[in-house]
Amino acid sequence: MSWEENVRKVVPYVAGEQPKRKDIIKLNTNECPYPPAPGVRRLAEQMNTDDLRLYPDQNTTGLTEALAAYYHVSPSRVFVGVGSDDVICMCFLTFFNGARPILFPDVTYSFYDVWADLYRIPYETVPLKSDWSLDVEGFDRPCGGVIFPNPNAPTGLYEPLSVVERILKMHPEEFVIVDEAYIDFGGESALPLLEKYDNLLVVQTFSKSRSMAGLRIGFCIGSEKMIRYLNDVKFSFNSYTMNLPSQLLGVEAVRDDAYFKETTGRIIATRERTKQALSGISFTFPDSKANFVFATHRSVPAEEIFRYLKERGIYVRHWNRPRIENCLRITIGTDEQMDRLIGTLKEMPGIL
Amino acid sequence: MSWEENVRKVVPYVAGEQPKRKDIIKLNTNECPYPPAPGVRRLAEQMNTDDLRLYPDQNTTGLTEALAAYYHVSPSRVFVGVGSDDVICMCFLTFFNGARPILFPDVTYSFYDVWADLYRIPYETVPLKSDWSLDVEGFDRPCGGVIFPNPNAPTGLYEPLSVVERILKMHPEEFVIVDEAYIDFGGESALPLLEKYDNLLVVQTFSKSRSMAGLRIGFCIGSEKMIRYLNDVKFSFNSYTMNLPSQLLGVEAVRDDAYFKETTGRIIATRERTKQALSGISFTFPDSKANFVFATHRSVPAEEIFRYLKERGIYVRHWNRPRIENCLRITIGTDEQMDRLIGTLKEMPGIL
Repeated sequence: MSWEENVRKVVPYVAGEQPKRKDIIKLNTNECPYPPAPGVRRLAEQMNTDDLRLYPDQNTTGLTEALAAYYHVSPSRVFVGVGSDDVICMCFLTFFNGARPILFPDVTYSFYDVWADLYRIPYETVPLKSDWSLDVEGFDRPCGGVIFPNPNAPTGLYEPLSVVERILKMHPEEFVIVDEAYIDFGGESALPLLEKYDNLLVVQTFSKSRSMAGLRIGFCIGSEKMIRYLNDVKFSFNSYTMNLPSQLLGVEAVRDDAYFKETTGRIIATRERTKQALSGISFTFPDSKANFVFATHRSVPAEEIFRYLKERGIYVRHWNRPRIENCLRITIGTDEQMDRLIGTLKEMPGIL
Repeated sequence: MSWEENVRKVVPYVAGEQPKRKDIIKLNTNECPYPPAPGVRRLAEQMNTDDLRLYPDQNTTGLTEALAAYYHVSPSRVFVGVGSDDVICMCFLTFFNGARPILFPDVTYSFYDVWADLYRIPYETVPLKSDWSLDVEGFDRPCGGVIFPNPNAPTGLYEPLSVVERILKMHPEEFVIVDEAYIDFGGESALPLLEKYDNLLVVQTFSKSRSMAGLRIGFCIGSEKMIRYLNDVKFSFNSYTMNLPSQLLGVEAVRDDAYFKETTGRIIATRERTKQALSGISFTFPDSKANFVFATHRSVPAEEIFRYLKERGIYVRHWNRPRIENCLRITIGTDEQMDRLIGTLKEMPGIL
């Protein structure tokens, strides 16, 4: 008998590499290639660092109110956390306490099964169809809740709201969490469905479309009752999860809507250009509505391309997992970065 | 049947008030009255906000290495989190998985039972003795682990390392967590005991002695194996818990040791002055080695004093809980703030 017997043993999530070299082209973790809104820098420079001696506002009032105003809901329906990972993990702990398994796609954000394992939540995966779309009928079975990203990751495929609504109708008594980390790149948010479904929770993040992965801000919007339960768990965990800089600078990112629309618009345009260029050199991919493309080459194995690019300072994402081992998830960077990517690919033997 | 049945229902921790008024004297949440080290402001002003678009270093390398160097341990023995609350909550989840109850004092940091409830960890409390000291023999029974703050909160009493060691010897097969949130105000850290006991984990925070409650930085030091288990759970929760500003500015706080020693020294001097002044107006208290005093008046009930002070813009902490309902936890502020406190108390009917 030793203390090790009482340890919770888990297999952690492995995030994409964060190389320290600055000269690489980093297309492996779906960050935004543009800096945060200009006001963020101004606000950071003016920040009163003497205030850091005090605990931050535990209710994250300013940011919660800014988000509520932006999405036209009451602040009591908004919950913010340290990135959407924090928000979703808290949701798993709060809402998935039943005996029946929760459901999510087999090819999806690979943190879902990690959270389920961490909290000993039973789960079953619903295989995506061969075209990578959601197998909606596959979700039509007794379960303890449903979670899926829309657009899905790493496929980038967006499912119309009619699909989201069908799943909500299948499970009126269970939580349905729609993880909209990539919604700002061309999809339509499920937020309006909140008026009809009190079992729906919509999660979003500042890490992709709002250029703030480094600040760790995520949020979700749901019914007032849901948010109350979520806050009870949050306040049982850590009263002060979001620090002062994130609370202050996050508000500024929400305020500058013109910049937000401009940069997401630019990324969408670059994505469409990139799709054309990739098609031209024999890549296929689902029609992504996210800030990445999930691409397979006609003849060169993904792992070889992954290594080839990495040796040349271009980082994309590759998983050695069933079904997706021949795919690369390529984040959409700037036009220049994507031109470099395409140019480098063209030089690889076997690509053209 | 409704979704509410599957919700994890908990009674959350209630932190001290964080009033938004700036003109009050805030002695209710044990913050430091002095601003962070001067270098923190300089570094904040220079921060490259463009980097916020990238995920922060998931291994918090810089801060981990700075702490390791400061405390003369290997970086592989240091774990950092979003405040010591995050660290301890993660420890509860990671290490307290046995069937036997964990043990902590009855009068102590009131988050311990909340975390135990959140994760359904059985626990038993060991009543403090009537002089508020730890009942060491009370911990000598089969258990699933032990946690206690040293100095204890809200009493402020420090237990010598011989006491810590006795508890470690009682439980060689269980985790013993010493929560040293207040250790920098006059106690001797249990860190040297790590060389002899591989079941010991020492937790500290930047929120009190390092003037950085607003950045949310806590850490713990233990055996390499323990830290590895803790990281597995952390990476099953959220890969990127600590944001860029905290990682950058935290390092600067560790580097400026002269400022750290100067400000903690000032707080200690103010505490001793405050003790004398409180004794002079008929308060009694355990001999605090923390940045607060846990005081009871000879005749005026604590709750009346609490309200009286609050009406006059001085916030201290009071709990309506058995054993401590007649005590006030008064944070040590600046000399001027404590003079205002004492002056205001002297004007209250019944105090003199």
